[in-house]
Amino acid sequence: MNSKPIGMFDSGVGGLNVLKEIKKTLPNEDIIYLGDTNNFPYGNKSEQTIIELSRKCVEFLLKKNVKLIIIACGTATSQALDILNKEYDIPIIGILQPTVEYLKTKVKSGQNVGVIATNGTIKSMQWEKRIKEEIKECDVKSMACPLLAPLAEEGWTSNEVAKYTIKEYMKPFKNIDYLVLGCTHYPLFKDLIIEELGKGVDVIDTGEKLGKYLKEYLQNKDFLKDQEKAKYEIYLTDTEANFIEVAKKLDNNAVIKHI
Amino acid sequence: MNSKPIGMFDSGVGGLNVLKEIKKTLPNEDIIYLGDTNNFPYGNKSEQTIIELSRKCVEFLLKKNVKLIIIACGTATSQALDILNKEYDIPIIGILQPTVEYLKTKVKSGQNVGVIATNGTIKSMQWEKRIKEEIKECDVKSMACPLLAPLAEEGWTSNEVAKYTIKEYMKPFKNIDYLVLGCTHYPLFKDLIIEELGKGVDVIDTGEKLGKYLKEYLQNKDFLKDQEKAKYEIYLTDTEANFIEVAKKLDNNAVIKHI
Repeated sequence: MNSKPIGMFDSGVGGLNVLKEIKKTLPNEDIIYLGDTNNFPYGNKSEQTIIELSRKCVEFLLKKNVKLIIIACGTATSQALDILNKEYDIPIIGILQPTVEYLKTKVKSGQNVGVIATNGTIKSMQWEKRIKEEIKECDVKSMACPLLAPLAEEGWTSNEVAKYTIKEYMKPFKNIDYLVLGCTHYPLFKDLIIEELGKGVDVIDTGEKLGKYLKEYLQNKDFLKDQEKAKYEIYLTDTEANFIEVAKKLDNNAVIKHI
Repeated sequence: MNSKPIGMFDSGVGGLNVLKEIKKTLPNEDIIYLGDTNNFPYGNKSEQTIIELSRKCVEFLLKKNVKLIIIACGTATSQALDILNKEYDIPIIGILQPTVEYLKTKVKSGQNVGVIATNGTIKSMQWEKRIKEEIKECDVKSMACPLLAPLAEEGWTSNEVAKYTIKEYMKPFKNIDYLVLGCTHYPLFKDLIIEELGKGVDVIDTGEKLGKYLKEYLQNKDFLKDQEKAKYEIYLTDTEANFIEVAKKLDNNAVIKHI
């Protein structure tokens, strides 16, 4: 048993999708979430900047005495996770590993995997590298879709603009078997993507895979909390009206604070 | 005469549109441009954060011994200009005043002015306040268009996505006479906007108005540089490939440095 809270961070509202998935699979766990809204979006920043910002988020969560840390951000996972895991003793889990584990059980020889994410994530080549390392004889095609996060922040996830954006971004992915949504904002476009690619493609919500992976991880480590009734504390580095609205929808009793 | 350089800052590539306009009207002037790419975009940040970031930009430019400072960013103009002008002796000019001066000579009684800009600029109400103060009997309607800057950064300024985005954003502006492009990225969509609203609407590029205003301002103050051949120095707070590409197109000999 370990009744300390789970720590999480992301640059904006995207990570709240991951929080929602963790809430589903682990309804008793307390969660402390840090949204680094002051520095949103991470997607176009340099690797060095993303590492520094991620380090600050980890330091903040360590002070809150968390039992492990989830990086609920595709960009920070790709560019900072390995370095942070070397620097800190606490377990730090990103959105990459759970999906790679899932793909390992699914992908058959000769099948193709697509990955869409932010500029920073795609440039890092982490998804391609990890999938190719773990799954032999599989072709990986990746592409940056930098407009999807701002579209999600605007709430345009099913209008004509969203449809044409998905149409344009899906052009290179007509012959794939799996599509990884490598940014936590992207599940909001899952229906449109399936409409464009067809139901034969497995469109993977990395937050959902992380929720399932985390439950197993905590069970195996005997790290689950023993009491019921979860508490959520959400911290922001800059006030952001849309973020607060989404956070309140997630849990009406959540404590939301600007730091 | 004053042969010191002109200082400019913006959060990203948008301000380079303003630099281009100043280069047209004042081809002899040396310019030092700071792109605060590490903190792009300013548009969704809180007022306090924008003031602090703008102050840092001004401090950097002061060390470069500039003769005046241009805020080539709609958001920083709306939220920080008045405060900075109280704090510093050096003249600081934003993108608002030149366009308001232009509107004063143009708008007739009963005509309507529209303003589009980032979330931060619209929330500040600065455009509405200033236009109503200076021009009596004129109706002002303003709206945030937070997707236009990311679209411009993606280079999608004339495809189907851009068309539908403009179609959606222009809905409230069907009966206006003037439309102010209150963010320096927006002139890239000028053709699509005119197509949508019709040629009867005067679509105002705030950078172009600033270029003309600045020339007059320097002439009146006897602040023009006496030698020919301008030098451009461009500084970035974070490396950004697209920014460097745009900056090089603007002037192939420009010195571009990461600070």
